Amino acid sequence: MTPRRPLTPPARTLRIVVVNTIINPEDAPDAALAAQARRGNLLRIGLLESGYDIVASLPADFYLPERIAQLQPDLIIIDAESDARDVLEHIVIATRDERRPIVLFTEDGDTSSIDAAMEAGVSAYIVSGLQAERIKPVLNVALARFRQEQKLLAELSDTRHKLAGRKVIERAKGLLMARHQLSEDQAYQKLRSMAMNKKLKLAEVAQRILDVEDLLG
Amino acid sequence: MTPRRPLTPPARTLRIVVVNTIINPEDAPDAALAAQARRGNLLRIGLLESGYDIVASLPADFYLPERIAQLQPDLIIIDAESDARDVLEHIVIATRDERRPIVLFTEDGDTSSIDAAMEAGVSAYIVSGLQAERIKPVLNVALARFRQEQKLLAELSDTRHKLAGRKVIERAKGLLMARHQLSEDQAYQKLRSMAMNKKLKLAEVAQRILDVEDLLG
Repeated sequence: MTPRRPLTPPARTLRIVVVNTIINPEDAPDAALAAQARRGNLLRIGLLESGYDIVASLPADFYLPERIAQLQPDLIIIDAESDARDVLEHIVIATRDERRPIVLFTEDGDTSSIDAAMEAGVSAYIVSGLQAERIKPVLNVALARFRQEQKLLAELSDTRHKLAGRKVIERAKGLLMARHQLSEDQAYQKLRSMAMNKKLKLAEVAQRILDVEDLLG
Repeated sequence: MTPRRPLTPPARTLRIVVVNTIINPEDAPDAALAAQARRGNLLRIGLLESGYDIVASLPADFYLPERIAQLQPDLIIIDAESDARDVLEHIVIATRDERRPIVLFTEDGDTSSIDAAMEAGVSAYIVSGLQAERIKPVLNVALARFRQEQKLLAELSDTRHKLAGRKVIERAKGLLMARHQLSEDQAYQKLRSMAMNKKLKLAEVAQRILDVEDLLG
């Protein structure tokens, strides 16, 4: 008898990358920066105490996109005093191809900064710190928010794709009708049989027809 | 000389409706409910101290949709211990036709409750209370989140609309081609001139043609 597997896999520890401008308090030249470094330290302690795995603490530099691609974290936390916008810009580039939940801790409650962060797709924007015991619900809400937004974005992208496909199909159909003196229905049937023969989608065949037309001028 | 108007209108006080199950501590039969009532009271004090206008404190009952429609609040705050899901259901119905930012304060950190709230379009989900001084940034983030989501939903609805319109236009074109022995281009020109004469959109004329066809069988 083979050992029976559990019905649900054990909950995996969430792998987190923390991005901030200062890692070591020694790097901080003045009191404000030292305070920020302490705050960042408390955040990391809170994360570990809540059972999360901090796989890396990275500066927001040129290498960030590459490192995020290597580490594949489940969630990215930005810990920034007032320079959140600069850091965010780096993260957006780093997650453009593969979106990830982003949680932003900042002292910057400026409305335009908040708007920019929402636009960039930040899943949670937390102004003025957080008690350690509230970290878990905040991250859970951020993850749910991220999933919901991804669903919406996927639906938008799918609908856009269909619309674009339909435009391409119509143009290709018109081209076939003009070239081969076909009725609309005949042109459509021709497109369909081409798609079936080539095992392609209708929109893909249509695009090829338009590409060839472009080539031939 | 006419008096010069200020370049920007003065910031309007945000009008808030608070929805909860208990309004008066006297209504609370036991200690837990009394604690919830006190918490709700502190939340309302915090809102007033942050400069917001609480236009009403309402129970989540049958009359809620009508009252929200009358009051037209800028933001709805749900204050619920663990019965957030029931209350949320009422609010979703009450704001179905005209969406409004919804902020949820609750003790329920359950993942499935969070997922349900995100799905329902809650702009902020705050577990385990909040210090009074953090109310303003939290509401600002909720408002920005709401605006961003509305933009996304509007884009989705617009794209869906275009796709649906295109399908209708194609079907009407095919009908005209078959009925009047027209080429695709002629059918399209006919649709266009009908739309211009009737001052309608192309998709609207196309829909009417299909409706008539349906009527005539």
